[in-house]
Amino acid sequence: MILHGYWRSTAAWRVRIALAMKGLTAEQVPHHLRDGGQRAPDYLALNPQGLVPALETDDGQVLTQSLAICEYLDEIAPEPPLLPGDAARRARIRAAALIVAADIHPVQNLKIIQRIKALGQDEQAWARRVIEDGFDALEALLSKVEGPLAFGPAPTLADIFITPQMANARRFGCELRWPRLQAIEAECLKLDAFRLTAPEHQPDAE
Amino acid sequence: MILHGYWRSTAAWRVRIALAMKGLTAEQVPHHLRDGGQRAPDYLALNPQGLVPALETDDGQVLTQSLAICEYLDEIAPEPPLLPGDAARRARIRAAALIVAADIHPVQNLKIIQRIKALGQDEQAWARRVIEDGFDALEALLSKVEGPLAFGPAPTLADIFITPQMANARRFGCELRWPRLQAIEAECLKLDAFRLTAPEHQPDAE
Repeated sequence: MILHGYWRSTAAWRVRIALAMKGLTAEQVPHHLRDGGQRAPDYLALNPQGLVPALETDDGQVLTQSLAICEYLDEIAPEPPLLPGDAARRARIRAAALIVAADIHPVQNLKIIQRIKALGQDEQAWARRVIEDGFDALEALLSKVEGPLAFGPAPTLADIFITPQMANARRFGCELRWPRLQAIEAECLKLDAFRLTAPEHQPDAE
Repeated sequence: MILHGYWRSTAAWRVRIALAMKGLTAEQVPHHLRDGGQRAPDYLALNPQGLVPALETDDGQVLTQSLAICEYLDEIAPEPPLLPGDAARRARIRAAALIVAADIHPVQNLKIIQRIKALGQDEQAWARRVIEDGFDALEALLSKVEGPLAFGPAPTLADIFITPQMANARRFGCELRWPRLQAIEAECLKLDAFRLTAPEHQPDAE
């Protein structure tokens, strides 16, 4: 498999974590986002969204959207499960991941904050507000769920989305007011699948 | 089951379609978004994100995030499948849904366009650009997949996300330049599960 990514992309980091948890490997091909590498014609032919990550499977299919890729990896390699439990628990794990995947990250990704900046607005304040809104709600939801990770003792899809987003929260200077989420991040970063896949350990890191 | 929604919310419409496809029913409880009904304390206690939809299951669990709810319904009522095919095809269907669920809708939902307007910017132009960017990519991706619906002859999770979003594209005055997506919408709206669940047919429609 080939993983198209970028060291600092939190969406690519999610897929690196899922691969590592499953004991799968993929050749990493970096696309430099700040230089517009994701808008190069060959990459757009692969992923018309011009976003990372994209995963090329061994039979040449191109999969996009980090959540869809993580679910794919969970289906081809079921152990350890990213979505353990019954249908309702799986839904709650997916919902936690989606707060990050849908309501936080796409509203503060590079493309959108560049657009906010081009409107003459404070893009850092924009990103902080988006992250704080989403994490406030996620903290409230997870405060009702037993830890130490998001859904119990083993990492799930929720942890795979929360930990990279916490790095963005720090980067944009958010007020870190989420004891439950910060504890999840601290626990996750003790695990090789999370720590060794972190942005700063990637070959294209600057 | 109880579905907390709002007639015009495209995210709530997705869940209404999935319920109808599965032959399931839920009592509908509307929350008036433009009047801030989703920020009322009892609703925030149910869903700290203050977003619709939320689904209360028969055993009293509260599920949030429309994509997670649709996957839940697909797990408790597997026929007809929302994600037919092998793992790679399921990933491609999920990715198509996620272009809407993550990269389009949360960046142009009511909360965000109100924020753009408060910054003194043209929120309609913002929404149009977000929808057009996402739909241009989705059109390119689906032009490689056989129709007439997004993934073949039967509706999938992708159609459930595309058709409601197309209503938003019209509402914001987007240039309708997506023959594949428009054909999907036209086909879907021939089906009761899509047509009868449309915003204008809801009891709280204005």
